Amino acid sequence: MRVPEKLLALINDENSFFISTHINPDGDALGSSLALSLALESLGKKTVLYDRDRVPEFYRFLPAHEKFSASLPSNGQPLILLDCNEPGRAGLDDVVLPYSAVIDHHETVRDFGDIRWVDPHAAATGIMVYYLIKELGLEITQNIATNLYTAIAVDTGTFRYSNTNSELLRVCAELIDSGADPASISLALYEAWSERRFRLLIEVLNTLEIVDHIAFTFVTKEMFIGTGTTAEDTEHFSNFPRMMEHVEVSAFFRETDGAWKVSLRSKGSVDVARIAERFNGGGHRNAAGYKITADIKTAKEELIKEIQDV
Amino acid sequence: MRVPEKLLALINDENSFFISTHINPDGDALGSSLALSLALESLGKKTVLYDRDRVPEFYRFLPAHEKFSASLPSNGQPLILLDCNEPGRAGLDDVVLPYSAVIDHHETVRDFGDIRWVDPHAAATGIMVYYLIKELGLEITQNIATNLYTAIAVDTGTFRYSNTNSELLRVCAELIDSGADPASISLALYEAWSERRFRLLIEVLNTLEIVDHIAFTFVTKEMFIGTGTTAEDTEHFSNFPRMMEHVEVSAFFRETDGAWKVSLRSKGSVDVARIAERFNGGGHRNAAGYKITADIKTAKEELIKEIQDV
Repeated sequence: MRVPEKLLALINDENSFFISTHINPDGDALGSSLALSLALESLGKKTVLYDRDRVPEFYRFLPAHEKFSASLPSNGQPLILLDCNEPGRAGLDDVVLPYSAVIDHHETVRDFGDIRWVDPHAAATGIMVYYLIKELGLEITQNIATNLYTAIAVDTGTFRYSNTNSELLRVCAELIDSGADPASISLALYEAWSERRFRLLIEVLNTLEIVDHIAFTFVTKEMFIGTGTTAEDTEHFSNFPRMMEHVEVSAFFRETDGAWKVSLRSKGSVDVARIAERFNGGGHRNAAGYKITADIKTAKEELIKEIQDV
Repeated sequence: MRVPEKLLALINDENSFFISTHINPDGDALGSSLALSLALESLGKKTVLYDRDRVPEFYRFLPAHEKFSASLPSNGQPLILLDCNEPGRAGLDDVVLPYSAVIDHHETVRDFGDIRWVDPHAAATGIMVYYLIKELGLEITQNIATNLYTAIAVDTGTFRYSNTNSELLRVCAELIDSGADPASISLALYEAWSERRFRLLIEVLNTLEIVDHIAFTFVTKEMFIGTGTTAEDTEHFSNFPRMMEHVEVSAFFRETDGAWKVSLRSKGSVDVARIAERFNGGGHRNAAGYKITADIKTAKEELIKEIQDV
């Protein structure tokens, strides 16, 4: 992986950086930003870490996560934008940005940034930051290693998705040697559910209905009240029915005020972004969503119709 | 990892081998046995692969899995016993075994075998077989790589358990370079469930009861009949309750003829191998099992007592 010379020059020339990532930050956004901040500080630079949204509770095991702030800096440092490539995704539409660099691996590329390092072949922004830190000749400390390992783990499903390759495993082996603990990171990512959340999952799985390779599950307001949970607790629920071989689309319906939020997950060739767009929603090929005002029976029938049409 | 000279000598001296692994075989048992068989055959040797139980349907993606047979050979070849260290675990109690070698990573060690290579520090028997194949100077073909990668993936929760380390990731990187496809193996392991199996999981999760950081679930014969499933469909079921932060031990009870097979999984410091040994079972620190003849209420109470005693 080739780090742009202009990015290395920017980092060497400037003394203070404004590091930001997308709203609703995930493990790759947080881990890669924190790793970059820690590395630049080890080089004697100053950094301000910004996210419009707070660090989700289950990511507060990340070393130095408390460096994130929702206050914008005011002294015009260059921006380094990670894991997205337009200021709107970071809630920075109205901010004056004198100079900007982008480090991202997403496929949809916007025309933003004086320096644009966007590599859709990278499994995670975390692996790009790893190569940047190596190119700068900086030490991978334990805190940097833990952040980078988490970033890569989250975006590869800990080495289960099709972006997993041997290079990635070798980089992660080095991160382990630098102090990242794979078991405790996995524990934090996958085995830190509350009992309430687990009991809600069981209730949701009990609603399973399968029609034409589409798995339907739903959660009602009553189920939230009964288990003492909230919408946040349903993250990843839509992935479970994908465990079944013949399920091509998993559709998870969540009741909101007078409507249903529908989360779609697919395997293989089914493009759920296109289906969600028909309902004025959107997303990626294998993960998308939309909102519909209808009773659940009608909502399911309309979805079946759209999937059969695609 | 040091491969015993006597084992290398045995393989070089003999021309035909009887390879066997434990009953109710899992991915490490199957993958490591198949990899060894394929490697020995590339060396011009003959092998007979034996398991008393058939290869579970969801492991039939393993290359060469059809080599497994439930027929015992009769011409007295040396036995190589994998992923267990006593003939009873392989259903071989009544078989005359003129000469035997053991390759295993389990902690509970019995006094069996003319050559005994038992390394509880190895994450999987698959990684021991990897070093054996390297030591023999044989090529890791794509079929061998897929079997070894699967063996290691299964026994480390694809690099999530505490037996994951940097050496393991480097070996798996090499296996990917030799043709193992991490994404398609993960798909086969985690997203190829039958609907029946998924419905059985939901029924099992509905039995969840939590006492003192111990999560209890069970499956009855009736539930198997109702869903059209068998015991082999319950692999991994005991892992699900571990998703909860405060659960330290997950105990899954499976009804057999007049008894319960108990599968224990733990997080952190709880040593379930020691607990299983009190019931004449065995296993690893974080994954063990035993059999008990009692009604389920008594069986649960006795387990709680033992865990509190440890």
